[in-house]
Amino acid sequence: MKNPIGIFDSGVGGLTVFHEIKKALPHKDIVYFGDTARVPYGSKSKRTIIQYSLQNMIFLLQQHIELLVVACNTSSAYAIEELKKHSSIPIIGVIEPGAKKALSVSKNRRIGIIGTEGTITSGSYEKALKSLDAQCEIFSKPTPLLVPLVEENWIHHKVTKEIIQEYLHEFLENDIDTIIMGCTHYPVLKKVIQEVVGNSITLVDSAESIALELKKMYSSQPIQKTAGNYTFFVSDNPEKFKILGTQILGEDPKNVKKVFFTDAWVIDDFDV
Amino acid sequence: MKNPIGIFDSGVGGLTVFHEIKKALPHKDIVYFGDTARVPYGSKSKRTIIQYSLQNMIFLLQQHIELLVVACNTSSAYAIEELKKHSSIPIIGVIEPGAKKALSVSKNRRIGIIGTEGTITSGSYEKALKSLDAQCEIFSKPTPLLVPLVEENWIHHKVTKEIIQEYLHEFLENDIDTIIMGCTHYPVLKKVIQEVVGNSITLVDSAESIALELKKMYSSQPIQKTAGNYTFFVSDNPEKFKILGTQILGEDPKNVKKVFFTDAWVIDDFDV
Repeated sequence: MKNPIGIFDSGVGGLTVFHEIKKALPHKDIVYFGDTARVPYGSKSKRTIIQYSLQNMIFLLQQHIELLVVACNTSSAYAIEELKKHSSIPIIGVIEPGAKKALSVSKNRRIGIIGTEGTITSGSYEKALKSLDAQCEIFSKPTPLLVPLVEENWIHHKVTKEIIQEYLHEFLENDIDTIIMGCTHYPVLKKVIQEVVGNSITLVDSAESIALELKKMYSSQPIQKTAGNYTFFVSDNPEKFKILGTQILGEDPKNVKKVFFTDAWVIDDFDV
Repeated sequence: MKNPIGIFDSGVGGLTVFHEIKKALPHKDIVYFGDTARVPYGSKSKRTIIQYSLQNMIFLLQQHIELLVVACNTSSAYAIEELKKHSSIPIIGVIEPGAKKALSVSKNRRIGIIGTEGTITSGSYEKALKSLDAQCEIFSKPTPLLVPLVEENWIHHKVTKEIIQEYLHEFLENDIDTIIMGCTHYPVLKKVIQEVVGNSITLVDSAESIALELKKMYSSQPIQKTAGNYTFFVSDNPEKFKILGTQILGEDPKNVKKVFFTDAWVIDDFDV
């Protein structure tokens, strides 16, 4: 591995981000970490998410990454500032790229956000959107059952559609024209969400937007001839990660290694 | 606290077990630990569940418990033997009491089990039932969406009923007369599960059965005059634990403390 890009997520969902980065930069080496022993992050406290995110970053720094992508929306919402305090490499979360993309496609500046409890409570997307366009109107809705539905692989199940309808029916009365899918699992449900919200609403996820940003950052580097190498680390269940990963990537993630997680010292000055 | 009983669970669900023990032994002090920073356990590997369960037990041993109740079905299914190797106090899981109770109510010896992926995969209920009655017929079904539905508080939602129907419709063709609710969250859904399966099927949970067993164990002890004291420790989100706990107990669990979790040394000789 040569100066790989690091990506971490609470579990397997971040592979949607990995997939786009791989397409945009096919020659870059990438190291992925999925915290499958402590998934999900969306319902846990800010302090705990900061602690977990720092541990994940420290692990990836040990793999000599030159840039970190925080694929998990909840980590991006809660922990980016703390991560930046503890590292000198560039760190990119999913919030800003998602917000930028939403504003680039929205015509009426009325934007919806769906995500985990943590992501929605943090107000991070609102802050990012408002700082880019103070005039936009924002509507947000926590949709915590969507992650377990994806993990249960009930993607095409009628109950999934009903749950999405239940979550979004009031939401859709707000005349929004764009919805940010604020969780790495949601792109897997894009088709059924689109069916529920109708074709007049554009669904946005951060993965493509991040990939585009990275492509720009690397545009001055000479293009290598060889294809990138990929390593996937997980804190639990490498076999299950391979199965779900194959569904997301359309191919076996192959090089999946189990990590035994232990504590590392970090200065306890979180601003919570 | 005087020689308290210790109870641990992956989160808040074990309060259904706490509740029954408190009713059966109102004078005993009880210390409860809910691992809300790493919940859920049901989808994680055996090795990880053993590691988490040992850490939880070691914490409770530090609170000077004289007996440990493992309220979590997944921990009971995967980790009881390992826990017993590392402690000299009595340890009671939920599997055996649940199996005993099911056999005591079943007339046709055709018993269903619903639970998390881990609990069902482990085959622990089957083993316990077969060792008590080699003639009984057992049908098991993982129902992983039920925990998120309870945590989302969609207890009375029509989608919840549909999901339970979807999980159980084939299951019900097996002429079973008893179903073990093999997860501490499920008693919260007892009413809707009963509606789906009909009144000819008896729903069994381990909480009452464990409480009865403990009552027998303590029958020779002189009854104390004062009411028991209760302390609840959680690894994340004490406020959320109080809210969900109040729903389960019908009263505020009051004395809830946050635990900062760190690693402790344990001999790595798990038989996995």
